[in-house]
Parts: sequence; C-alpha cells; structure tokens
Amino acid sequence: MWEETLEEERLFAGRIIDVRRLTVKLPNGRTSTREVVLHPGAVAVLAEVEPNQVVLVRQYRKPCEQILWEIPAGKLEPGESPEDAARRELSEETGYRCEGPLTPVHVFYTAPGFSNEKLHVYYARDLALGARHPDGDEDVEARLFSRDELGAMLAKGDIQDAKTLVALYWWMVRT
Amino acid sequence: MWEETLEEERLFAGRIIDVRRLTVKLPNGRTSTREVVLHPGAVAVLAEVEPNQVVLVRQYRKPCEQILWEIPAGKLEPGESPEDAARRELSEETGYRCEGPLTPVHVFYTAPGFSNEKLHVYYARDLALGARHPDGDEDVEARLFSRDELGAMLAKGDIQDAKTLVALYWWMVRT
Repeated sequence: MWEETLEEERLFAGRIIDVRRLTVKLPNGRTSTREVVLHPGAVAVLAEVEPNQVVLVRQYRKPCEQILWEIPAGKLEPGESPEDAARRELSEETGYRCEGPLTPVHVFYTAPGFSNEKLHVYYARDLALGARHPDGDEDVEARLFSRDELGAMLAKGDIQDAKTLVALYWWMVRT
Repeated sequence: MWEETLEEERLFAGRIIDVRRLTVKLPNGRTSTREVVLHPGAVAVLAEVEPNQVVLVRQYRKPCEQILWEIPAGKLEPGESPEDAARRELSEETGYRCEGPLTPVHVFYTAPGFSNEKLHVYYARDLALGARHPDGDEDVEARLFSRDELGAMLAKGDIQDAKTLVALYWWMVRT
C-alpha cells in the first residue's frame, strides 16, 4: 500500500506549518501528487478539576471564523515532550497545574488526508489552581463544566472540535 | 474575541487545499499573523452493516507515512450536499449503499488551530452491498469489525484517526 515519494516541492515554510507537494508512485505503478501540510504535533488535556467538573477554554479560531469551546491544547515546542507540553498548555490557558501523573487518552491524526498533525491527549486529576499566563496572541477564557452540562452539549452539537469530542467521549465511556 | 483580517496573502492554491497568511487585528489592539489552510470540507460514515458490525477502511495516508483504519470518508465535491457526499463515499470505498436515512452524528472542525476543514459524520443502517468503485488514486481495503473488536482496538490505541474515534465513541455511548 506504501506510496514512494518521487519528488518533493516545498511550497511554504511558515511559523507553524510547512506545505509541500509530493509526487508519489502508487502501488499500482501510476504517479499522483499529494498536498501535505507538515505540523510539529500538538497536545491537549482533559482536566477533571473536581469530580465530574472539567475545564474547557473558549477561543476565537481564525481559520473557522468562529468561537469554539475546547479542551486546553497547543502545539509542541521544539525538543519538548508531549507530556511536558500538556502540563505547560494546561497551566498557561487555565491556571491549573497538574500535581500528579497524566494519563494517556489517545494519540491520533487530526486530518490524515492532508496533514501529519499528531495530537497527544491526556487526562489529568490532582489539580491546583495557580496563575494563568496565556501567550500574548491568545485570548482564551476558561470555565468549568459539569458532566451533565457536557452530556447536553454533546447531544446538542455544541462541541465542534475533534479533540474535545474524542476526549469527552473517552471520559464518558471510561470513567 | 473576534479577529479582524487586515491583510490576506495567498500562498498556495492546490487541488484540495488553499494556503493563506492572514494579518489580523487582535481584540487587544495588537497585530498578529495566522497561517490558514482552507479546505472544502469532508464527510464520513459510520456504517453498521449488520447489528454490531461496522465497516472500516484501511488506507495508506501519505502525510502520516502510515496505514490507518478509518471509517469511510472523503471530501465534498463542489455543489454536493454533505449527505450526498457521505452516500457516495460509502459506496465508492466499501460497496455498501445506504437504502434508508442517514443519521447526523457530529459536525466538527478537525484542526481548528490552522484549518477550516469541517467534517460531517453520519451513521448509516439499512445497507445493501453493491460494487466498490474507489477512485484511481486510492488503494482502499474494506473490512467488518465487531463491537467487541472495536472496543479492544480503542483500548489498545489502534484507532489513530480523529473522525473514527469520534464516530466509534458516539456509537458506544448512544447505541
């Protein structure tokens, strides 16, 4: 099934993404092109702050021109482990520091048709509230939601972000 | 929270994606840039072929350099409704035609940090097996999985695709 890369054209190297056009040899011998968005990878945290209380953040997402409720998340910095990044993003966006271990939830590709973005989702308890320190380009609001509220939001379609859907359903099924 | 677009630079217009760099005015008055991958949107179908038997497809995903098991999916064609696209992709990739209504599962953004890709996921029953006719650039293998097998795959981390995780958890919780 493997597709060999015959040619690689770098179209755009940005702050976060790197866009390439690959010419590939298909298993059937034909040639095709693939447009690929390379991404450093990202992390997200489902933080259960009190029993049955989860923290979500509300953020304007420019690509979607919409405000979304999401679990805290962010991209991996160079050399940073996914677990360290998860702790950092949780603290930056919500003020909560996780004082215990993080539980791995899922590792998945968000959009495997065109991007290699790999997302590491963790589950956190044992949380202590410190100061928030979002980065200067982010306008993020944090709020707690009960399990019942989240169940109602899932049923109504109010959660419109893939990683948040995965994490909340995992939580509903596993805990 | 809204970010006004001050400037828009088109970096790459591909077959599927369209990459832009936007200069935006943040709510705090500062200026920043956003790298955005515009996408036509996509559909996916959780098809329960027999009670507790779901069809997945196996496909090499060049951006990830990996073979993934996923629910059948594909991008929206111009002018096509999400429901028509879902029926078309299911039939192309698996041979199953849905003879009843499709149930909406979730509509979500796969990677809202950098892309506007919006994914419409449906649930299908009342399926009849016809001929598969994948597009010439696709090498797709279809197979049925039982609920127990899928539960084990979820627990082991064998499902590494966001839309498939969302759809399978929805199915486990709702049905």
